[in-house]
Amino acid sequence: MTETAVRFLAEIQVSLKPTVNDPEGTTIAGALGNLGFDTVQSVRAGRYFQVMLEASDAVTAEEHVKQMCERLLANPVIETYSFKVTALEPA
Amino acid sequence: MTETAVRFLAEIQVSLKPTVNDPEGTTIAGALGNLGFDTVQSVRAGRYFQVMLEASDAVTAEEHVKQMCERLLANPVIETYSFKVTALEPA
Repeated sequence: MTETAVRFLAEIQVSLKPTVNDPEGTTIAGALGNLGFDTVQSVRAGRYFQVMLEASDAVTAEEHVKQMCERLLANPVIETYSFKVTALEPA
Repeated sequence: MTETAVRFLAEIQVSLKPTVNDPEGTTIAGALGNLGFDTVQSVRAGRYFQVMLEASDAVTAEEHVKQMCERLLANPVIETYSFKVTALEPA
């Protein structure tokens, strides 16, 4: 870490590509229907990560988070991801 | 459905409360460190849902999504949730 490192919070959403079957989402949609939420049309289930990291600036932080998604957090064959990086305070 | 129903997309994030142990997040943080992402400080793992629903207006849609979170999607004892509702088009 250099002295100018800033702390960032990355909020990452990983979801299945639209063409991939999502039995978990289908099950949840059915359960919501059984609970009386009959206006629900469909549910897609995915994962959510909050990653706290240090970086010199927001562009660097976003680049690191993108690599994390590509290499570990998402499976690029069947999943898509999106994220938002927010600066918290100087680390 | 009335004829004025609008389709909404609710994007819901469910995460463990800060005081609750998150072994999955800890494991992911360790794996990211092993991959060379040594600027990662912590990871919290959660779930992400995309719910497509119909409602007469955004306020109604938000109220329905809140009830879904309370009753099925999140465990209010150990989890918190946040969501955003976006109008898509007339259903």
